[in-house]
Amino acid sequence: MLLPLCTWSEIEQFLGRSRTIVIPIGSNEQHGPIGLLGTDWMCPEIIAHEAQKSADILIAPTFNIGMAQHHLGFPGTITLRPSTFIAAICDWVNSLAAHGFEKILFLNGHGGNVASIEAAFSELYAQASFARRPAGFALKLCNWWDLEGVGELANRQFPKGHGIHATPSEIAVTQWAYPQHIKSAEYSPAIANWGPIREAADFRARHPDGRMGSDPGLATPEKGRELVMLAAQGLVQAVEAFSTEPSPY
Amino acid sequence: MLLPLCTWSEIEQFLGRSRTIVIPIGSNEQHGPIGLLGTDWMCPEIIAHEAQKSADILIAPTFNIGMAQHHLGFPGTITLRPSTFIAAICDWVNSLAAHGFEKILFLNGHGGNVASIEAAFSELYAQASFARRPAGFALKLCNWWDLEGVGELANRQFPKGHGIHATPSEIAVTQWAYPQHIKSAEYSPAIANWGPIREAADFRARHPDGRMGSDPGLATPEKGRELVMLAAQGLVQAVEAFSTEPSPY
Amino acid sequence: MLLPLCTWSEIEQFLGRSRTIVIPIGSNEQHGPIGLLGTDWMCPEIIAHEAQKSADILIAPTFNIGMAQHHLGFPGTITLRPSTFIAAICDWVNSLAAHGFEKILFLNGHGGNVASIEAAFSELYAQASFARRPAGFALKLCNWWDLEGVGELANRQFPKGHGIHATPSEIAVTQWAYPQHIKSAEYSPAIANWGPIREAADFRARHPDGRMGSDPGLATPEKGRELVMLAAQGLVQAVEAFSTEPSPY
Amino acid sequence: MLLPLCTWSEIEQFLGRSRTIVIPIGSNEQHGPIGLLGTDWMCPEIIAHEAQKSADILIAPTFNIGMAQHHLGFPGTITLRPSTFIAAICDWVNSLAAHGFEKILFLNGHGGNVASIEAAFSELYAQASFARRPAGFALKLCNWWDLEGVGELANRQFPKGHGIHATPSEIAVTQWAYPQHIKSAEYSPAIANWGPIREAADFRARHPDGRMGSDPGLATPEKGRELVMLAAQGLVQAVEAFSTEPSPY
Amino acid sequence: MLLPLCTWSEIEQFLGRSRTIVIPIGSNEQHGPIGLLGTDWMCPEIIAHEAQKSADILIAPTFNIGMAQHHLGFPGTITLRPSTFIAAICDWVNSLAAHGFEKILFLNGHGGNVASIEAAFSELYAQASFARRPAGFALKLCNWWDLEGVGELANRQFPKGHGIHATPSEIAVTQWAYPQHIKSAEYSPAIANWGPIREAADFRARHPDGRMGSDPGLATPEKGRELVMLAAQGLVQAVEAFSTEPSPY
Amino acid sequence: MLLPLCTWSEIEQFLGRSRTIVIPIGSNEQHGPIGLLGTDWMCPEIIAHEAQKSADILIAPTFNIGMAQHHLGFPGTITLRPSTFIAAICDWVNSLAAHGFEKILFLNGHGGNVASIEAAFSELYAQASFARRPAGFALKLCNWWDLEGVGELANRQFPKGHGIHATPSEIAVTQWAYPQHIKSAEYSPAIANWGPIREAADFRARHPDGRMGSDPGLATPEKGRELVMLAAQGLVQAVEAFSTEPSPY
Repeated sequence: MLLPLCTWSEIEQFLGRSRTIVIPIGSNEQHGPIGLLGTDWMCPEIIAHEAQKSADILIAPTFNIGMAQHHLGFPGTITLRPSTFIAAICDWVNSLAAHGFEKILFLNGHGGNVASIEAAFSELYAQASFARRPAGFALKLCNWWDLEGVGELANRQFPKGHGIHATPSEIAVTQWAYPQHIKSAEYSPAIANWGPIREAADFRARHPDGRMGSDPGLATPEKGRELVMLAAQGLVQAVEAFSTEPSPY
Repeated sequence: MLLPLCTWSEIEQFLGRSRTIVIPIGSNEQHGPIGLLGTDWMCPEIIAHEAQKSADILIAPTFNIGMAQHHLGFPGTITLRPSTFIAAICDWVNSLAAHGFEKILFLNGHGGNVASIEAAFSELYAQASFARRPAGFALKLCNWWDLEGVGELANRQFPKGHGIHATPSEIAVTQWAYPQHIKSAEYSPAIANWGPIREAADFRARHPDGRMGSDPGLATPEKGRELVMLAAQGLVQAVEAFSTEPSPY
Repeated sequence: MLLPLCTWSEIEQFLGRSRTIVIPIGSNEQHGPIGLLGTDWMCPEIIAHEAQKSADILIAPTFNIGMAQHHLGFPGTITLRPSTFIAAICDWVNSLAAHGFEKILFLNGHGGNVASIEAAFSELYAQASFARRPAGFALKLCNWWDLEGVGELANRQFPKGHGIHATPSEIAVTQWAYPQHIKSAEYSPAIANWGPIREAADFRARHPDGRMGSDPGLATPEKGRELVMLAAQGLVQAVEAFSTEPSPY
Repeated sequence: MLLPLCTWSEIEQFLGRSRTIVIPIGSNEQHGPIGLLGTDWMCPEIIAHEAQKSADILIAPTFNIGMAQHHLGFPGTITLRPSTFIAAICDWVNSLAAHGFEKILFLNGHGGNVASIEAAFSELYAQASFARRPAGFALKLCNWWDLEGVGELANRQFPKGHGIHATPSEIAVTQWAYPQHIKSAEYSPAIANWGPIREAADFRARHPDGRMGSDPGLATPEKGRELVMLAAQGLVQAVEAFSTEPSPY
Repeated sequence: MLLPLCTWSEIEQFLGRSRTIVIPIGSNEQHGPIGLLGTDWMCPEIIAHEAQKSADILIAPTFNIGMAQHHLGFPGTITLRPSTFIAAICDWVNSLAAHGFEKILFLNGHGGNVASIEAAFSELYAQASFARRPAGFALKLCNWWDLEGVGELANRQFPKGHGIHATPSEIAVTQWAYPQHIKSAEYSPAIANWGPIREAADFRARHPDGRMGSDPGLATPEKGRELVMLAAQGLVQAVEAFSTEPSPY
Repeated sequence: MLLPLCTWSEIEQFLGRSRTIVIPIGSNEQHGPIGLLGTDWMCPEIIAHEAQKSADILIAPTFNIGMAQHHLGFPGTITLRPSTFIAAICDWVNSLAAHGFEKILFLNGHGGNVASIEAAFSELYAQASFARRPAGFALKLCNWWDLEGVGELANRQFPKGHGIHATPSEIAVTQWAYPQHIKSAEYSPAIANWGPIREAADFRARHPDGRMGSDPGLATPEKGRELVMLAAQGLVQAVEAFSTEPSPY
């Protein structure tokens, strides 16, 4: 079920059978010469929407702007500061918790979000911890590439040139979902270099076309399809495991 | 052009011919017995996406969670506090301004957002005002129902029972765009009552099924199509007028 | 009753007969060639102080600095950022609510405050909404020019040249109350132009003497007296209606 | 000159002859059995308004709500949290600095404000300090009772029972200015006890009628007049000294 | 007892016999030509650690960075803005209060901290005051030089040239504790000048070597020993008095 | 060099030969039945202080309170909320950057800090990124157990029962440095269980004595010495590598 396509009473009914919800979360940021700016929020959205076709799981609207300050040197990137990002995640969680959701899983599509999402979780839990009471909800972060079997598949598909930003795996996923928006461009070297991640001007100086360690030209829609199908399956399993995890209380 | 489906170099090229961008902004909140939770962010998204098919305008990702605290009494509603909402709008605008966008138009789908969006604009302008320098960007808020001719059309389509929340016009727009998600439900009275808007518990006590003054059953996909086509045209005009507005400097 | 001229035990007694309080709120900002910098906070203060002479209503101290960032290009303007303004309104309301006030009416004198006041109300209500409990108070915003009959009177008094900033009606009110501070100045054109409201430098470039659409020279103390008397009456009615409004619980 | 009773061009002219401004700042809080709730903001306002009658000094609007959390146990008290108070002072100063004011003197009427005002000053200076640049303004805090000779006069007037809250000196000042609002009440003991200042419930438990160490019944309007006249003179001297203080640069 | 050298169960046991804790708090900032950058946090740490050798009192880790914006013109100074400092103190207190500590004494080593610490206390108390409930904890600020007899001793030791920053008394304390880090330098004049405290650039212009009114060369380790022994004794008394202070409830 | 034991002019001289500084950062939190509450800030402090004995590197004061909300169920734990922690790190870095430090290395002793430290780095870099200018500084996070060879040594020392909280390696480090504070206690099972990290009440329910996966009884001072010596060497190398890293500009 896609929450935005439901009525409130359909959600009320869903809460009668499950207290778990999945939030696709990503970023809108440059993805090199051929990657789409929306890649990082589209990937978890694509996977989550696929997953709910075959399982009774609930998918929230997509949290589409993340922590991408280091990409601001490239037009089209939109970022939240970590402090804003944390505040927004707190409001999303507090809204859902008010309705009785007890297990909230963020399916993440952007490595740069991880630290701020985890900081947000701690900010949320801290309210309960200072008050020495249970939080009433459990939070989980899953990167889509960490879902069961997905990393292995990507390694088989792209034994060289996968890299960590504008990777062929994420681009393949968007190629499968948006076949009319497959881009091509000349770039060199074939595999981009690596480096530390700091402010935007530093990033662009190190990575002139935006890639980090990747050869996005290896992506194909078919490889994307394989990744989505496996990840969707992995998400259903992750939701099931999270939903049935026993409480320590 | 849809920004998330572009590469960063396509946006770089766009900036060579225009400095204007449109951000669809709405809310994810209860919309009565048959309205979709995503209605308020879907409507501006649908209209903006339609508009860019026939004009060279750029559409940002959709800002899909707004100020909906008063709807938290109904499952599925997600809200930002005004303070978080303001911080997030500031980060979006500062990101886009860093790329050289000078005219940023928020196409809004939720009346409850208006005050906080305007407060955010003032927060953004204030930085320049305290420093006694130009801001470098101009911001504009357009509600989709205020686009040229749209209000008149809605009045003709729904002379009675339009109301102000879960209106047949917004529901018609989503029915046209998501025909497989048209819902039906029994509700009474046909036209809902009105009242002040305060905290969520007060709102639900006054409006037990979530509607305010509306009869959503009047919506049809065909009426939605008419609204979208007219609004898309109005948006193109609004973007053109905003883009060519002379600077006072 | 004027709260600052009471002792705490007089307020304790008042709370035994009413739970309503009025807060005059405005701004300290340029008002064109002859308007006083304090115009926008003086007007609601003048009206509220007049109203309490003939009715048992309680008037709080005046909230005298509002959201006036766009006027910072003119000496004497003092503004709060919207974020500060919202925080301050929250503290005022939480203070009064702690004493048992349940109906808090802001009598506003500055159009530029409206968005931020409404955002503050939502910020306040949101605390209760996230917790799914009643707020314990109801908030109301009344612009003094919207009180019963006042707009009509101003239209009759100033059929042309009323405008929206440094208006003859607000200046007339201060002329009646502060007859020793009536100013005069040469200005042209007689009726000032209009335009969008953005950062301070933009505002001053568009409106070199600070007026928007108005001819303040039309103001007279006698017209001010008429406005004050009618508005004071309207305020008493508004307080009565608000105080007796039934709860939905 | 009273800033709110001036036009912006009068302030522009004033800036040609002086860069100094005085802000009366206080609190709206319980003042024992006969003290007015507005005592702490009225006193500096009364003194500052008196001072400008005989000297060319500029008085800002009164900052009338301060840090009075410990008095919230008594109806009518309104407080800002220190964090809000600091933010508001920053906005006031940044507004005035934008106009070219270089010496900003806060004439304070509430001991409980002192820490938060000084913290606000540091917050303001810190912006310049982190950037290793001059601030462009100097800030000064003067309590009215510390103006030249005032403390000695109060000691002579009230050798016993002056205390530190709801003192006869501050009540005398308001009696002189607001003779129609002189209150009387029975209270005992004649001189109230002392104690630490903590949260509101603790304060009310320790000080059931709100006084700290004082016998407010000793106040008379005539003593108030003496205090005001001396303090007004002291303020003029303080402004002169501050205005002519040499810069270290 | 030094809390960081205990296990959690030792603290659990301590809470069975006392609800009081001491937090040494200071600043890391320039201390003139021969003073150590850590002087202001070392002094209260040295004294508190000495005191717990002879009494069953509990010492928290040292809060070592305070409000020192005015010293940023000198390398090695690290400061928190007042707003950050207040937030951090709130978190320390809320952590300790969650464990049941009811009396929290800050032993302070930096005059520049006083305002922000007191503002933090009010911020903490305000939460209880708005809610009209007891705070559950009492907070106390003691500057080490105000402990019983310490000021008198310092006056006897340094009848001239004590000053207020980089004083011989504080330097003597660190000389006793860190004899291998006693520095010497040429400086003149022997006794430094005084002045107002504003932004860092202003401070350095007024006080080129960082001292205010002091001659640090008067310090000796032996004088430091005397100060520490007396202050440690005074701290034990202060803790005893605070611990046994009756509640007003 | 230990910064707090230097004068400001010694730091000024150091800046002439290096622009790098090390900040030991940790947490004050429960460490199981025999671990010290200060373990996580003592370990990086011990290692950094050791390292500077043999190399010309500069060590800042220790940042001793981190993000430990999940340990608040055990007495003695003190935590900052992530939002406070981020603000404090920003102030530390901005202070040091004001002096000209260009490479700031945080030597971390607490896994729970990692996300919030990285979020703080992004918050700091974002200021430069929004302004499209270089930041002027580079930030690096090193966990002490990730220094060259340290993880391997710990694995050899503790092939079983190392775990992730209250580990024998961190306890060994403190045993070597504080031999008079070696504790012992009965606990079972020998090796503690694992689980997710959420709010404090959840944590204590899952981990009744505070350990996660560890058998702290395996610690010995001698093993601690080995770890410290190797880590100190690794830190010197890390500082050297960071200091000489070429700029991309």
